Amino acid sequence: MAKRIGKRTLALEHKPGVVSFASVVGGKEGAGPLKKGFDEVSADSYFGQESWEKAETAMLSRSLTRCLEKGDGLKPDCILGGDLLNQCVSSAFAVRDRSMPYLGLYGACSTMAEGLGLAALLIDGGGINSALAFTGSHFCAAERQYRFPLEYGGQRTPTSQWTVTGAGAVLLARESDSLRVTHVTPGRVVDAGITDANNMGAAMAPAALDTILAHFDDLNRSFDDYDAVFTGDLGAIGHDILQDLLQREGLSPGLKYMDCGVLIYDLLTQDVHAGGSGCGCSASVLCAHILPAMERGVWRRVLFAGTGALMSPLTCQQGESIPGVCHAVTIERREDV
Amino acid sequence: MAKRIGKRTLALEHKPGVVSFASVVGGKEGAGPLKKGFDEVSADSYFGQESWEKAETAMLSRSLTRCLEKGDGLKPDCILGGDLLNQCVSSAFAVRDRSMPYLGLYGACSTMAEGLGLAALLIDGGGINSALAFTGSHFCAAERQYRFPLEYGGQRTPTSQWTVTGAGAVLLARESDSLRVTHVTPGRVVDAGITDANNMGAAMAPAALDTILAHFDDLNRSFDDYDAVFTGDLGAIGHDILQDLLQREGLSPGLKYMDCGVLIYDLLTQDVHAGGSGCGCSASVLCAHILPAMERGVWRRVLFAGTGALMSPLTCQQGESIPGVCHAVTIERREDV
Repeated sequence: MAKRIGKRTLALEHKPGVVSFASVVGGKEGAGPLKKGFDEVSADSYFGQESWEKAETAMLSRSLTRCLEKGDGLKPDCILGGDLLNQCVSSAFAVRDRSMPYLGLYGACSTMAEGLGLAALLIDGGGINSALAFTGSHFCAAERQYRFPLEYGGQRTPTSQWTVTGAGAVLLARESDSLRVTHVTPGRVVDAGITDANNMGAAMAPAALDTILAHFDDLNRSFDDYDAVFTGDLGAIGHDILQDLLQREGLSPGLKYMDCGVLIYDLLTQDVHAGGSGCGCSASVLCAHILPAMERGVWRRVLFAGTGALMSPLTCQQGESIPGVCHAVTIERREDV
Repeated sequence: MAKRIGKRTLALEHKPGVVSFASVVGGKEGAGPLKKGFDEVSADSYFGQESWEKAETAMLSRSLTRCLEKGDGLKPDCILGGDLLNQCVSSAFAVRDRSMPYLGLYGACSTMAEGLGLAALLIDGGGINSALAFTGSHFCAAERQYRFPLEYGGQRTPTSQWTVTGAGAVLLARESDSLRVTHVTPGRVVDAGITDANNMGAAMAPAALDTILAHFDDLNRSFDDYDAVFTGDLGAIGHDILQDLLQREGLSPGLKYMDCGVLIYDLLTQDVHAGGSGCGCSASVLCAHILPAMERGVWRRVLFAGTGALMSPLTCQQGESIPGVCHAVTIERREDV
């Protein structure tokens, strides 16, 4: 049985373990600073398909297959996934032929943290012995759905972020010798009134603050208790905003606080403006960088705080502000928990 | 701790109880056969807003507020919701000012069953004492997103269904004197190769069959063990297809099998062609018809099998078939479990 600690953090009794994980990305991501960590890099942005949306499906499906292959044949009792395409079609189509129970999620770019947290809670709650969380995004599919078709050649603002072409999948199980999920802090929808659809980092930073503060308050912890804290895709601008907001709360994250959207590209040379974003950002960085480093012992306790902007092109056109959400999951090395 | 019985049905140990539920619908639904059951009927399709999307948000928000009001001030530890609009914005915006943890779902029209099942599993798993599941849909917002703006005056095919303008919300808690959720059977993505986006009932019926058969097999039950079995929104054509499919499997549902999409409108006089559909269909019928009748003792054990079509206008344009999913939840009267 999970136990609630404080206002909204759930401490897992059985601490589900990480069985396997995999990431599949496009060429730009494969040329970035994390290039050595990805399981697969596709030089072909179409992933062998004939449309960007089918490419995204193929990429998600590859990440799923690769994760299952690395999981030594363990077939999950349940798959949790979602994506950014309208009606979350790429994740649904990626599981179409797999004959496994599927729970569709929509957490925008926070989907990996939401899925990982829910998978851990379902395993901890009994009846489900293993569950796989996966998600991803594709730059070209996202651009034409959210902004302009690539052929239009639209200018990008300095605050804009680059949707990661990438996918990640994590398989959890009750029994595992590896890393453990120990806590889940589900996020609230926080709206700071940002209306600039090209400044997602600013829109999501207040939600990240809300969840990280709640997590720390609930467990009576601070940055001192973590080796590293990752937000999902605030990018360089959102990262700096969150640094400021944390300092105003008396917290000193120092170098322990990092953002997946800052890590995945070389911001000086890869022309991505404020950094990476999209469901695939935190998912691929988790699977290519965070979890491998934890397995190597670089970090022993990590807070993975996925961030999402809950908007659509239509809500922005209708003048709505952009609320954010952030779900946080604590991952620890087995011998420490 | 939940226990798995058979291949994929989860039996809940604590059998979370229904604290309250509410439904809010539009004028057409309020003029239909279930008119006496809805908590609110809005004669104004705009629900006081200036766009169909904002109307959907307002309607969802009303269902949430109404359900919480009927819950005697119990504040849920977690809200689970989703909808059909791109990026699930109406559910996200409906919880924006509520300061409660929110887990976004995308189960297409199966969202109420998915949310109800997950809410029950989270409560059963510990740490979360109460959780609210909600969803809804709006005919006018759905028409312009999925098909044509209303002003276009497009012809509708005989097999097409009418997206329900309606929302439903159910609050579950560990302690409750009322109805109980006893089993959850999560659905698989089943693709029978249907490509007609105007025949959703045919696309979803095979998924409903898959989940109902799995549920019966797992628990060694049949229609004899249920007072009523409801699918979400197969409509008249999908209902008949599923009847046929069930009979081919040797099952005789008789009058025990009903579909929310058939029940919500008068199919002879309300010009809805094959019946109702949309997230709001099963959600509002659950809250206006099924749960009230169970409270009155009309039915003592019900299987609520929400159905969803996992497609988007774009996947149909790209020639993809339409996979379906069906999540099933068993609800029973407290004194029977």
